[in-house]
Amino acid sequence: MADIKQVAIVGGTHGNEFSGVYLIRRYQRQPELLQRQSFHAWTLFANPQAFAANKRYLDADLNRQFRRDDLDNPSLSNYEQSRAKVIDSVLGPKGSPHADLVIDLHNTTSNMGPVLILTQAGDFYNQLAAYVKMQMPEAVISCDEDHLSAEEHRLLCTTGRYGVIVEVGPQPQSVIRQDVLEQMHSMTQHILDFADLYNRSELPELPTEVEAFRYLHSIMLPLNEQGERLGMVHKHVQDQDFKAIQPGDPIFTLFDGGEIRYEGDSVVYPSFINEAAYYDNNLAMSLNEKVTLKISS
Amino acid sequence: MADIKQVAIVGGTHGNEFSGVYLIRRYQRQPELLQRQSFHAWTLFANPQAFAANKRYLDADLNRQFRRDDLDNPSLSNYEQSRAKVIDSVLGPKGSPHADLVIDLHNTTSNMGPVLILTQAGDFYNQLAAYVKMQMPEAVISCDEDHLSAEEHRLLCTTGRYGVIVEVGPQPQSVIRQDVLEQMHSMTQHILDFADLYNRSELPELPTEVEAFRYLHSIMLPLNEQGERLGMVHKHVQDQDFKAIQPGDPIFTLFDGGEIRYEGDSVVYPSFINEAAYYDNNLAMSLNEKVTLKISS
Repeated sequence: MADIKQVAIVGGTHGNEFSGVYLIRRYQRQPELLQRQSFHAWTLFANPQAFAANKRYLDADLNRQFRRDDLDNPSLSNYEQSRAKVIDSVLGPKGSPHADLVIDLHNTTSNMGPVLILTQAGDFYNQLAAYVKMQMPEAVISCDEDHLSAEEHRLLCTTGRYGVIVEVGPQPQSVIRQDVLEQMHSMTQHILDFADLYNRSELPELPTEVEAFRYLHSIMLPLNEQGERLGMVHKHVQDQDFKAIQPGDPIFTLFDGGEIRYEGDSVVYPSFINEAAYYDNNLAMSLNEKVTLKISS
Repeated sequence: MADIKQVAIVGGTHGNEFSGVYLIRRYQRQPELLQRQSFHAWTLFANPQAFAANKRYLDADLNRQFRRDDLDNPSLSNYEQSRAKVIDSVLGPKGSPHADLVIDLHNTTSNMGPVLILTQAGDFYNQLAAYVKMQMPEAVISCDEDHLSAEEHRLLCTTGRYGVIVEVGPQPQSVIRQDVLEQMHSMTQHILDFADLYNRSELPELPTEVEAFRYLHSIMLPLNEQGERLGMVHKHVQDQDFKAIQPGDPIFTLFDGGEIRYEGDSVVYPSFINEAAYYDNNLAMSLNEKVTLKISS
Protein backbone atom coordinates (compact mmCIF):
# COMPACT_ATOMS: atom_id res chain seq x y z
CA MET A 1 0.00 0.00 0.00
CA ALA A 2 1.42 3.36 -1.03
CA ASP A 3 1.96 6.07 1.57
CA ILE A 4 -0.34 9.00 2.27
CA LYS A 5 1.49 11.91 0.64
CA GLN A 6 -1.25 14.51 0.07
CA VAL A 7 -3.98 15.29 2.60
CA ALA A 8 -6.81 17.74 1.88
CA ILE A 9 -8.94 19.21 4.68
CA VAL A 10 -12.20 20.57 3.27
CA GLY A 11 -14.54 23.04 5.01
CA GLY A 12 -17.69 24.78 3.92
CA THR A 13 -19.07 22.01 1.69
CA HIS A 14 -22.37 23.12 3.16
CA GLY A 15 -22.41 26.91 3.47
CA ASN A 16 -24.36 27.10 6.74
CA GLU A 17 -22.22 24.55 8.62
CA PHE A 18 -19.79 27.00 10.16
CA SER A 19 -17.32 24.87 12.15
CA GLY A 20 -15.45 23.61 9.09
CA VAL A 21 -15.20 27.09 7.61
CA TYR A 22 -13.71 28.51 10.79
CA LEU A 23 -11.47 25.48 11.38
CA ILE A 24 -9.81 25.71 7.96
CA ARG A 25 -9.38 29.46 8.49
CA ARG A 26 -7.57 28.62 11.72
CA TYR A 27 -5.35 26.11 9.91
CA GLN A 28 -4.57 28.72 7.26
CA ARG A 29 -3.44 31.11 9.99
CA GLN A 30 -1.59 28.38 11.92
CA PRO A 31 -0.23 26.03 9.24
CA GLU A 32 1.94 24.34 11.86
CA LEU A 33 -1.24 22.59 13.03
CA LEU A 34 -1.33 20.74 9.69
CA GLN A 35 2.35 19.91 9.46
CA ARG A 36 3.40 16.30 9.94
CA GLN A 37 6.66 14.59 9.13
CA SER A 38 5.46 12.32 6.33
CA PHE A 39 2.91 14.21 4.21
CA HIS A 40 1.77 17.55 2.88
CA ALA A 41 -1.62 18.82 4.13
CA TRP A 42 -3.62 21.73 2.77
CA THR A 43 -7.10 23.23 3.01
CA LEU A 44 -9.96 23.80 0.57
CA PHE A 45 -13.02 26.02 1.08
CA ALA A 46 -15.54 24.02 -0.92
CA ASN A 47 -18.53 26.36 -1.27
CA PRO A 48 -17.67 29.97 -0.39
CA GLN A 49 -20.66 31.21 -2.44
CA ALA A 50 -23.11 29.27 -0.27
CA PHE A 51 -21.34 30.49 2.88
CA ALA A 52 -21.64 34.09 1.67
CA ALA A 53 -25.35 33.49 1.06
CA ASN A 54 -25.64 31.80 4.49
CA LYS A 55 -27.30 28.78 2.88
CA ARG A 56 -26.56 25.08 2.64
CA TYR A 57 -26.21 25.48 -1.14
CA LEU A 58 -27.27 27.77 -3.96
CA ASP A 59 -28.73 25.32 -6.52
CA ALA A 60 -28.16 21.76 -5.29
CA ASP A 61 -26.48 19.92 -2.43
CA LEU A 62 -22.75 19.99 -3.26
CA ASN A 63 -22.17 16.83 -1.23
CA ARG A 64 -24.34 14.80 -3.63
CA GLN A 65 -22.55 15.73 -6.89
CA PHE A 66 -19.52 13.42 -6.95
CA ARG A 67 -20.66 10.32 -8.83
CA ARG A 68 -18.03 9.69 -11.53
CA ASP A 69 -20.70 9.73 -14.24
CA ASP A 70 -22.08 13.06 -13.02
CA LEU A 71 -18.62 14.59 -12.84
CA ASP A 72 -18.10 13.52 -16.46
CA ASN A 73 -21.43 14.97 -17.63
CA PRO A 74 -21.00 18.60 -18.75
CA SER A 75 -24.75 19.09 -19.08
CA LEU A 76 -25.05 18.97 -15.27
CA SER A 77 -24.25 22.65 -15.09
CA ASN A 78 -25.80 24.38 -12.09
CA TYR A 79 -23.55 26.12 -9.58
CA GLU A 80 -22.77 23.17 -7.32
CA GLN A 81 -22.55 20.73 -10.25
CA SER A 82 -19.97 23.06 -11.78
CA ARG A 83 -18.13 23.56 -8.51
CA ALA A 84 -18.00 19.76 -8.03
CA LYS A 85 -16.14 19.39 -11.32
CA VAL A 86 -13.61 22.00 -10.21
CA ILE A 87 -13.14 20.34 -6.82
CA ASP A 88 -12.71 16.96 -8.51
CA SER A 89 -9.98 18.45 -10.68
CA VAL A 90 -8.19 19.65 -7.52
CA LEU A 91 -8.68 16.68 -5.14
CA GLY A 92 -9.18 13.96 -7.72
CA PRO A 93 -9.77 13.19 -10.44
CA LYS A 94 -11.81 10.49 -8.78
CA GLY A 95 -10.30 7.15 -9.66
CA SER A 96 -6.79 8.56 -10.04
CA PRO A 97 -6.65 11.19 -7.37
CA HIS A 98 -4.14 13.82 -6.35
CA ALA A 99 -5.30 13.66 -2.71
CA ASP A 100 -4.51 10.43 -0.87
CA LEU A 101 -6.80 11.42 1.99
CA VAL A 102 -9.73 13.86 2.01
CA ILE A 103 -11.17 14.96 5.36
CA ASP A 104 -14.49 16.76 4.83
CA LEU A 105 -15.76 18.79 7.81
CA HIS A 106 -19.50 18.91 8.56
CA ASN A 107 -22.00 19.92 11.23
CA THR A 108 -25.38 18.50 12.11
CA THR A 109 -28.22 19.99 14.13
CA SER A 110 -28.69 16.50 15.63
CA ASN A 111 -27.27 15.48 19.00
CA MET A 112 -24.66 13.14 17.49
CA GLY A 113 -21.48 14.30 19.19
CA PRO A 114 -18.21 13.98 17.27
CA VAL A 115 -18.65 11.35 14.54
CA LEU A 116 -16.11 9.86 12.15
CA ILE A 117 -17.91 8.66 9.01
CA LEU A 118 -16.13 6.02 6.92
CA THR A 119 -17.30 5.77 3.33
CA GLN A 120 -15.49 2.60 2.26
CA ALA A 121 -14.26 -0.65 3.81
CA GLY A 122 -10.67 -1.65 4.40
CA ASP A 123 -7.83 -2.02 6.86
CA PHE A 124 -6.84 1.65 6.59
CA TYR A 125 -10.30 2.79 7.63
CA ASN A 126 -10.66 0.27 10.43
CA GLN A 127 -7.25 1.10 11.88
CA LEU A 128 -8.09 4.82 11.61
CA ALA A 129 -11.37 4.23 13.45
CA ALA A 130 -9.63 2.28 16.21
CA TYR A 131 -6.96 4.96 16.60
CA VAL A 132 -9.46 7.86 16.74
CA LYS A 133 -11.65 5.99 19.23
CA MET A 134 -8.57 5.22 21.36
CA GLN A 135 -7.54 8.91 21.45
CA MET A 136 -11.07 10.28 21.75
CA PRO A 137 -13.35 7.80 23.52
CA GLU A 138 -16.40 10.03 23.05
CA ALA A 139 -16.06 9.71 19.26
CA VAL A 140 -18.66 7.66 17.39
CA ILE A 141 -17.69 5.58 14.35
CA SER A 142 -20.24 5.51 11.54
CA CYS A 143 -19.80 3.49 8.38
CA ASP A 144 -21.49 3.04 5.07
CA GLU A 145 -18.79 0.89 3.64
CA ASP A 146 -20.36 -1.50 1.19
CA HIS A 147 -23.47 0.13 -0.19
CA LEU A 148 -21.77 1.92 -3.05
CA SER A 149 -18.50 1.73 -4.91
CA ALA A 150 -16.35 4.84 -4.80
CA GLU A 151 -17.32 5.51 -8.44
CA GLU A 152 -20.98 5.53 -7.47
CA HIS A 153 -20.56 7.54 -4.27
CA ARG A 154 -21.96 11.06 -4.40
CA LEU A 155 -19.94 12.45 -1.47
CA LEU A 156 -17.17 14.99 -1.89
CA CYS A 157 -14.68 13.05 0.24
CA THR A 158 -14.85 10.09 -2.16
CA THR A 159 -12.77 12.07 -4.66
CA GLY A 160 -9.67 11.12 -2.64
CA ARG A 161 -7.99 7.72 -2.50
CA TYR A 162 -9.27 7.62 1.06
CA GLY A 163 -12.08 9.85 2.24
CA VAL A 164 -13.73 10.47 5.58
CA ILE A 165 -16.26 12.91 7.01
CA VAL A 166 -15.89 14.56 10.40
CA GLU A 167 -19.49 15.29 11.46
CA VAL A 168 -20.07 17.15 14.73
CA GLY A 169 -23.29 18.25 16.45
CA PRO A 170 -25.55 19.49 17.78
CA GLN A 171 -25.05 22.92 16.28
CA PRO A 172 -27.80 25.03 14.71
CA GLN A 173 -27.18 26.07 11.14
CA SER A 174 -25.30 29.36 10.80
CA VAL A 175 -23.90 29.32 14.34
CA ILE A 176 -20.39 28.73 15.77
CA ARG A 177 -20.30 26.85 19.06
CA GLN A 178 -16.88 26.74 20.72
CA ASP A 179 -17.41 23.22 22.11
CA VAL A 180 -18.32 21.85 18.67
CA LEU A 181 -15.39 23.64 17.01
CA GLU A 182 -12.99 22.16 19.57
CA GLN A 183 -14.32 18.63 19.02
CA MET A 184 -13.93 19.02 15.26
CA HIS A 185 -10.38 20.27 15.71
CA SER A 186 -9.50 17.39 18.04
CA MET A 187 -10.83 14.69 15.73
CA THR A 188 -9.11 16.24 12.70
CA GLN A 189 -5.81 16.36 14.55
CA HIS A 190 -6.15 12.69 15.53
CA ILE A 191 -6.78 11.76 11.89
CA LEU A 192 -3.66 13.66 10.81
CA ASP A 193 -1.65 12.00 13.56
CA PHE A 194 -2.91 8.59 12.47
CA ALA A 195 -1.96 9.16 8.83
CA ASP A 196 1.53 10.19 9.86
CA LEU A 197 2.02 7.22 12.19
CA TYR A 198 0.55 4.90 9.53
CA ASN A 199 3.02 6.19 6.95
CA ARG A 200 5.93 5.71 9.32
CA SER A 201 4.74 2.28 10.55
CA GLU A 202 4.74 3.68 14.07
CA LEU A 203 1.13 3.11 15.05
CA PRO A 204 0.62 2.21 18.70
CA GLU A 205 -0.87 -1.15 19.52
CA LEU A 206 -4.52 -0.93 18.46
CA PRO A 207 -7.47 -2.87 19.87
CA THR A 208 -8.49 -5.91 17.83
CA GLU A 209 -11.96 -4.54 17.16
CA VAL A 210 -13.99 -1.34 17.38
CA GLU A 211 -17.74 -0.72 17.61
CA ALA A 212 -19.35 1.12 14.73
CA PHE A 213 -22.81 2.01 13.43
CA ARG A 214 -23.56 0.86 9.92
CA TYR A 215 -26.13 2.78 7.91
CA LEU A 216 -29.21 0.79 6.92
CA HIS A 217 -31.75 3.27 5.53
CA SER A 218 -33.55 6.54 6.31
CA ILE A 219 -37.15 6.89 7.44
CA MET A 220 -39.54 9.69 6.65
CA LEU A 221 -41.79 11.79 8.82
CA PRO A 222 -45.43 10.65 8.68
CA LEU A 223 -47.10 12.41 5.75
CA ASN A 224 -50.60 12.52 4.30
CA GLU A 225 -51.32 11.94 0.61
CA GLN A 226 -50.74 15.63 -0.09
CA GLY A 227 -47.27 15.36 1.38
CA GLU A 228 -48.14 17.40 4.48
CA ARG A 229 -46.52 16.40 7.77
CA LEU A 230 -48.83 14.57 10.16
CA GLY A 231 -46.42 14.29 13.05
CA MET A 232 -42.98 14.84 14.50
CA VAL A 233 -40.13 12.86 16.03
CA HIS A 234 -41.26 11.49 19.41
CA LYS A 235 -39.80 13.34 22.36
CA HIS A 236 -38.38 10.09 23.74
CA VAL A 237 -36.32 9.70 20.54
CA GLN A 238 -35.31 13.39 20.16
CA ASP A 239 -31.59 13.87 20.96
CA GLN A 240 -31.11 10.09 21.47
CA ASP A 241 -28.84 9.59 18.46
CA PHE A 242 -27.07 6.19 18.51
CA LYS A 243 -29.29 4.96 21.39
CA ALA A 244 -31.16 1.69 20.75
CA ILE A 245 -34.70 1.70 19.36
CA GLN A 246 -36.46 -1.58 20.10
CA PRO A 247 -39.27 -3.00 17.94
CA GLY A 248 -42.48 -1.46 19.28
CA ASP A 249 -40.85 1.69 20.69
CA PRO A 250 -42.69 4.94 19.84
CA ILE A 251 -40.79 6.96 17.25
CA PHE A 252 -43.30 9.61 16.08
CA THR A 253 -45.97 11.68 17.81
CA LEU A 254 -48.83 12.63 15.51
CA PHE A 255 -50.26 16.13 15.69
CA ASP A 256 -53.64 14.58 16.45
CA GLY A 257 -52.16 13.02 19.59
CA GLY A 258 -51.49 9.48 18.34
CA GLU A 259 -48.16 7.70 18.19
CA ILE A 260 -46.35 5.65 15.57
CA ARG A 261 -44.17 2.82 16.79
CA TYR A 262 -41.12 1.28 15.20
CA GLU A 263 -42.27 -1.80 13.32
CA GLY A 264 -38.94 -3.34 12.36
CA ASP A 265 -38.08 -6.75 13.77
CA SER A 266 -34.66 -5.95 15.23
CA VAL A 267 -32.93 -3.30 17.29
CA VAL A 268 -31.77 -0.23 15.36
CA TYR A 269 -29.72 2.83 16.28
CA PRO A 270 -30.85 6.21 14.94
CA SER A 271 -28.68 9.07 13.70
CA PHE A 272 -29.36 12.48 12.14
CA ILE A 273 -32.54 12.63 14.26
CA ASN A 274 -34.57 15.70 13.26
CA GLU A 275 -31.66 17.12 11.21
CA ALA A 276 -32.83 20.51 9.93
CA ALA A 277 -31.23 20.11 6.51
CA TYR A 278 -33.25 16.95 5.83
CA TYR A 279 -36.67 18.55 6.41
CA ASP A 280 -36.95 19.55 2.76
CA ASN A 281 -37.12 15.85 1.98
CA ASN A 282 -39.14 15.05 5.14
CA LEU A 283 -36.43 12.67 6.37
CA ALA A 284 -36.91 12.04 10.08
CA MET A 285 -33.72 10.10 10.87
CA SER A 286 -31.28 7.49 9.62
CA LEU A 287 -31.35 3.99 11.06
CA ASN A 288 -28.18 1.98 11.68
CA GLU A 289 -27.14 -1.41 12.95
CA LYS A 290 -24.33 -1.89 15.43
CA VAL A 291 -21.36 -3.71 13.90
CA THR A 292 -17.84 -4.63 14.95
CA LEU A 293 -14.94 -3.60 12.76
CA LYS A 294 -11.99 -6.02 12.93
CA ILE A 295 -8.56 -4.44 13.13
CA SER A 296 -5.66 -6.12 11.35
CA SER A 297 -2.36 -5.68 13.13
CA MET B 1 -60.20 49.01 32.12
CA ALA B 2 -62.26 47.43 29.35
CA ASP B 3 -62.44 43.67 29.03
CA ILE B 4 -60.41 41.47 26.71
CA LYS B 5 -62.92 40.60 23.98
CA GLN B 6 -60.76 39.65 21.00
CA VAL B 7 -57.58 37.54 21.27
CA ALA B 8 -55.34 36.82 18.28
CA ILE B 9 -52.76 34.01 18.36
CA VAL B 10 -50.16 34.56 15.68
CA GLY B 11 -47.78 31.91 14.29
CA GLY B 12 -45.19 31.96 11.53
CA THR B 13 -44.12 35.59 11.91
CA HIS B 14 -40.69 34.14 11.13
CA GLY B 15 -41.02 31.45 8.48
CA ASN B 16 -38.36 29.10 9.84
CA GLU B 17 -39.66 29.09 13.43
CA PHE B 18 -41.90 26.06 13.14
CA SER B 19 -43.52 25.67 16.58
CA GLY B 20 -45.94 28.57 16.13
CA VAL B 21 -46.96 27.41 12.67
CA TYR B 22 -47.77 23.91 13.91
CA LEU B 23 -49.41 25.18 17.10
CA ILE B 24 -51.88 27.42 15.26
CA ARG B 25 -52.61 24.54 12.88
CA ARG B 26 -53.44 22.44 15.93
CA TYR B 27 -55.73 25.18 17.27
CA GLN B 28 -57.44 25.41 13.88
CA ARG B 29 -58.13 21.66 14.04
CA GLN B 30 -59.11 21.78 17.72
CA PRO B 31 -60.82 25.17 18.20
CA GLU B 32 -62.05 24.03 21.62
CA LEU B 33 -58.50 24.66 22.85
CA LEU B 34 -59.02 28.39 22.17
CA GLN B 35 -62.50 28.69 23.58
CA ARG B 36 -62.97 30.54 26.84
CA GLN B 37 -66.12 31.91 28.44
CA SER B 38 -65.38 35.61 28.13
CA PHE B 39 -63.68 36.28 24.79
CA HIS B 40 -63.31 35.21 21.19
CA ALA B 41 -59.90 33.83 20.14
CA TRP B 42 -58.66 33.18 16.62
CA THR B 43 -55.41 32.44 14.79
CA LEU B 44 -53.37 34.23 12.14
CA PHE B 45 -50.55 32.76 10.03
CA ALA B 46 -48.39 35.85 9.67
CA ASN B 47 -45.87 34.93 6.95
CA PRO B 48 -46.90 31.82 5.00
CA GLN B 49 -44.69 32.89 2.07
CA ALA B 50 -41.57 32.81 4.22
CA PHE B 51 -42.63 29.45 5.69
CA ALA B 52 -43.06 28.05 2.17
CA ALA B 53 -39.57 29.33 1.31
CA ASN B 54 -38.25 27.87 4.62
CA LYS B 55 -36.70 31.25 5.47
CA ARG B 56 -37.04 33.75 8.29
CA TYR B 57 -38.36 36.29 5.78
CA LEU B 58 -38.30 37.05 2.08
CA ASP B 59 -37.26 40.71 1.98
CA ALA B 60 -37.08 42.05 5.55
CA ASP B 61 -37.78 40.91 9.10
CA LEU B 62 -41.57 41.05 9.48
CA ASN B 63 -41.24 41.51 13.23
CA ARG B 64 -39.52 44.88 12.75
CA GLN B 65 -42.15 46.54 10.50
CA PHE B 66 -44.81 47.74 12.95
CA ARG B 67 -43.81 51.30 13.84
CA ARG B 68 -46.93 53.42 13.32
CA ASP B 69 -45.06 55.74 10.97
CA ASP B 70 -43.82 52.81 8.88
CA LEU B 71 -47.29 51.30 8.69
CA ASP B 72 -48.56 54.64 7.41
CA ASN B 73 -45.82 54.95 4.79
CA PRO B 74 -46.94 53.40 1.47
CA SER B 75 -43.47 53.75 -0.03
CA LEU B 76 -42.23 51.02 2.31
CA SER B 77 -43.37 48.39 -0.13
CA ASN B 78 -41.34 45.19 0.01
CA TYR B 79 -43.09 41.91 0.80
CA GLU B 80 -42.93 42.04 4.59
CA GLN B 81 -43.59 45.80 4.69
CA SER B 82 -46.72 45.14 2.65
CA ARG B 83 -47.73 42.15 4.72
CA ALA B 84 -47.30 44.24 7.91
CA LYS B 85 -49.86 46.74 6.65
CA VAL B 86 -52.32 43.93 6.00
CA ILE B 87 -51.73 42.41 9.44
CA ASP B 88 -52.17 45.82 11.05
CA SER B 89 -55.51 46.17 9.28
CA VAL B 90 -56.58 42.81 10.76
CA LEU B 91 -55.17 43.00 14.31
CA GLY B 92 -55.00 46.77 14.64
CA PRO B 93 -55.03 49.39 13.44
CA LYS B 94 -52.34 50.13 15.96
CA GLY B 95 -53.63 52.79 18.31
CA SER B 96 -57.27 51.75 17.89
CA PRO B 97 -57.03 48.01 17.59
CA HIS B 98 -59.49 45.25 16.88
CA ALA B 99 -57.47 42.75 18.93
CA ASP B 100 -57.38 43.36 22.67
CA LEU B 101 -54.58 40.84 23.11
CA VAL B 102 -52.05 39.58 20.54
CA ILE B 103 -49.96 36.51 21.41
CA ASP B 104 -47.11 36.12 18.91
CA LEU B 105 -45.39 32.70 18.89
CA HIS B 106 -41.63 32.49 18.32
CA ASN B 107 -38.66 30.12 18.58
CA THR B 108 -35.04 30.78 19.33
CA THR B 109 -31.97 28.61 18.74
CA SER B 110 -30.74 29.81 22.16
CA ASN B 111 -31.16 27.77 25.34
CA MET B 112 -33.76 30.14 26.83
CA GLY B 113 -36.53 27.72 27.78
CA PRO B 114 -40.12 29.01 27.66
CA VAL B 115 -40.06 32.82 27.86
CA LEU B 116 -42.92 35.29 28.16
CA ILE B 117 -41.85 38.63 26.69
CA LEU B 118 -43.75 41.74 27.83
CA THR B 119 -43.49 44.73 25.53
CA GLN B 120 -45.13 47.37 27.71
CA ALA B 121 -45.55 48.19 31.40
CA GLY B 122 -48.73 47.98 33.42
CA ASP B 123 -50.82 46.04 35.90
CA PHE B 124 -52.27 43.74 33.24
CA TYR B 125 -48.81 42.61 32.15
CA ASN B 126 -47.48 42.20 35.67
CA GLN B 127 -50.48 40.16 36.77
CA LEU B 128 -50.16 38.04 33.62
CA ALA B 129 -46.49 37.44 34.37
CA ALA B 130 -47.27 36.43 37.95
CA TYR B 131 -50.05 34.07 36.84
CA VAL B 132 -47.94 32.38 34.14
CA LYS B 133 -44.99 31.98 36.52
CA MET B 134 -47.33 30.51 39.16
CA GLN B 135 -48.74 27.94 36.71
CA MET B 136 -45.42 27.22 34.97
CA PRO B 137 -42.50 27.77 37.35
CA GLU B 138 -39.95 27.01 34.62
CA ALA B 139 -41.18 30.04 32.63
CA VAL B 140 -38.92 33.08 32.37
CA ILE B 141 -40.36 36.59 32.32
CA SER B 142 -38.61 39.06 30.02
CA CYS B 143 -39.58 42.68 29.71
CA ASP B 144 -38.73 45.66 27.60
CA GLU B 145 -41.41 47.85 29.02
CA ASP B 146 -40.22 51.42 28.91
CA HIS B 147 -37.78 51.76 26.07
CA LEU B 148 -40.33 52.55 23.41
CA SER B 149 -43.92 53.70 23.24
CA ALA B 150 -46.33 51.34 21.50
CA GLU B 151 -46.36 53.74 18.54
CA GLU B 152 -42.60 53.42 18.19
CA HIS B 153 -42.44 49.65 18.74
CA ARG B 154 -41.55 47.62 15.69
CA LEU B 155 -42.93 44.28 16.94
CA LEU B 156 -46.02 42.63 15.46
CA CYS B 157 -47.64 42.00 18.84
CA THR B 158 -47.72 45.75 19.57
CA THR B 159 -50.58 46.10 17.06
CA GLY B 160 -52.94 44.84 19.78
CA ARG B 161 -54.12 46.75 22.84
CA TYR B 162 -51.99 44.30 24.79
CA GLY B 163 -49.25 42.27 23.11
CA VAL B 164 -46.90 39.54 24.28
CA ILE B 165 -44.41 37.18 22.70
CA VAL B 166 -44.12 33.52 23.62
CA GLU B 167 -40.48 32.67 22.82
CA VAL B 168 -39.32 29.06 23.28
CA GLY B 169 -35.95 27.44 22.69
CA PRO B 170 -33.58 25.87 22.02
CA GLN B 171 -34.82 24.72 18.65
CA PRO B 172 -32.81 24.85 15.41
CA GLN B 173 -34.42 26.80 12.60
CA SER B 174 -36.70 24.69 10.39
CA VAL B 175 -37.16 21.89 12.92
CA ILE B 176 -40.10 20.80 15.12
CA ARG B 177 -39.16 19.54 18.57
CA GLN B 178 -42.03 17.96 20.52
CA ASP B 179 -40.77 19.27 23.88
CA VAL B 180 -40.59 22.85 22.60
CA LEU B 181 -44.02 22.60 20.95
CA GLU B 182 -45.52 21.35 24.23
CA GLN B 183 -43.96 24.22 26.21
CA MET B 184 -45.32 26.76 23.73
CA HIS B 185 -48.78 25.18 23.93
CA SER B 186 -48.70 25.21 27.76
CA MET B 187 -47.68 28.85 28.03
CA THR B 188 -50.26 29.92 25.45
CA GLN B 189 -53.00 28.07 27.33
CA HIS B 190 -51.99 29.76 30.58
CA ILE B 191 -52.18 33.18 28.90
CA LEU B 192 -55.67 32.41 27.59
CA ASP B 193 -56.74 31.18 31.04
CA PHE B 194 -55.37 34.36 32.60
CA ALA B 195 -57.26 36.63 30.19
CA ASP B 196 -60.49 34.78 30.92
CA LEU B 197 -60.01 34.91 34.70
CA TYR B 198 -59.00 38.58 34.44
CA ASN B 199 -62.16 39.40 32.51
CA ARG B 200 -64.31 37.60 35.05
CA SER B 201 -62.47 39.05 38.07
CA GLU B 202 -61.75 35.51 39.18
CA LEU B 203 -57.97 35.54 39.30
CA PRO B 204 -56.47 33.44 42.08
CA GLU B 205 -54.43 35.17 44.73
CA LEU B 206 -51.21 36.23 43.00
CA PRO B 207 -47.81 36.77 44.59
CA THR B 208 -46.98 40.39 45.38
CA GLU B 209 -43.98 40.41 43.07
CA VAL B 210 -42.35 38.39 40.31
CA GLU B 211 -38.77 38.25 39.04
CA ALA B 212 -38.15 39.39 35.47
CA PHE B 213 -35.26 40.20 33.16
CA ARG B 214 -35.28 43.67 31.71
CA TYR B 215 -33.53 44.24 28.38
CA LEU B 216 -30.57 46.64 28.50
CA HIS B 217 -28.78 46.34 25.15
CA SER B 218 -27.24 43.85 22.74
CA ILE B 219 -23.54 43.19 22.26
CA MET B 220 -21.75 42.26 19.07
CA LEU B 221 -19.30 39.51 18.26
CA PRO B 222 -15.71 40.77 18.13
CA LEU B 223 -15.02 42.03 14.60
CA ASN B 224 -12.04 43.46 12.78
CA GLU B 225 -12.17 46.69 10.77
CA GLN B 226 -13.33 44.76 7.70
CA GLY B 227 -16.29 43.41 9.67
CA GLU B 228 -14.91 39.87 9.82
CA ARG B 229 -15.55 37.87 12.99
CA LEU B 230 -12.52 37.52 15.24
CA GLY B 231 -14.08 35.25 17.82
CA MET B 232 -17.08 33.42 19.16
CA VAL B 233 -19.21 33.21 22.28
CA HIS B 234 -17.14 31.71 25.10
CA LYS B 235 -18.02 28.11 25.88
CA HIS B 236 -18.66 29.03 29.51
CA VAL B 237 -21.40 31.42 28.36
CA GLN B 238 -22.89 29.21 25.61
CA ASP B 239 -26.32 27.85 26.67
CA GLN B 240 -26.22 29.87 29.94
CA ASP B 241 -29.08 32.19 29.05
CA PHE B 242 -30.38 34.17 32.07
CA LYS B 243 -27.38 33.06 34.20
CA ALA B 244 -25.37 35.88 35.79
CA ILE B 245 -22.31 37.33 34.05
CA GLN B 246 -20.05 39.13 36.55
CA PRO B 247 -17.73 41.98 35.61
CA GLY B 248 -14.49 40.35 34.45
CA ASP B 249 -16.07 37.05 33.35
CA PRO B 250 -14.89 35.79 29.93
CA ILE B 251 -17.59 36.20 27.28
CA PHE B 252 -15.77 35.67 23.96
CA THR B 253 -13.02 33.32 22.80
CA LEU B 254 -10.95 34.76 19.97
CA PHE B 255 -9.94 32.54 17.10
CA ASP B 256 -6.30 33.38 17.88
CA GLY B 257 -6.77 31.84 21.33
CA GLY B 258 -7.33 34.99 23.39
CA GLU B 259 -10.35 35.88 25.48
CA ILE B 260 -12.50 38.97 25.88
CA ARG B 261 -13.99 39.64 29.30
CA TYR B 262 -17.13 41.49 30.24
CA GLU B 263 -16.11 45.03 31.12
CA GLY B 264 -19.39 46.36 32.52
CA ASP B 265 -19.47 47.42 36.16
CA SER B 266 -22.49 45.41 37.30
CA VAL B 267 -23.95 41.92 37.00
CA VAL B 268 -25.91 41.26 33.80
CA TYR B 269 -28.00 38.33 32.56
CA PRO B 270 -27.64 37.26 28.92
CA SER B 271 -30.37 36.09 26.55
CA PHE B 272 -30.49 35.13 22.87
CA ILE B 273 -26.94 33.81 23.27
CA ASN B 274 -25.59 32.79 19.84
CA GLU B 275 -29.06 33.08 18.25
CA ALA B 276 -28.65 31.96 14.63
CA ALA B 277 -31.00 34.62 13.24
CA TYR B 278 -28.86 37.40 14.69
CA TYR B 279 -25.62 36.33 12.98
CA ASP B 280 -26.37 38.46 9.93
CA ASN B 281 -25.95 41.47 12.21
CA ASN B 282 -23.14 39.84 14.23
CA LEU B 283 -25.16 40.16 17.44
CA ALA B 284 -23.70 37.83 20.07
CA MET B 285 -26.34 38.12 22.80
CA SER B 286 -28.70 40.48 24.60
CA LEU B 287 -27.86 41.69 28.11
CA ASN B 288 -30.53 42.15 30.78
CA GLU B 289 -30.80 43.30 34.36
CA LYS B 290 -32.83 41.42 36.93
CA VAL B 291 -35.86 43.39 38.11
CA THR B 292 -38.87 42.82 40.32
CA LEU B 293 -42.32 43.45 38.93
CA LYS B 294 -44.83 44.56 41.57
CA ILE B 295 -48.26 42.99 41.37
CA SER B 296 -51.29 45.08 42.27
CA SER B 297 -54.07 43.07 43.86
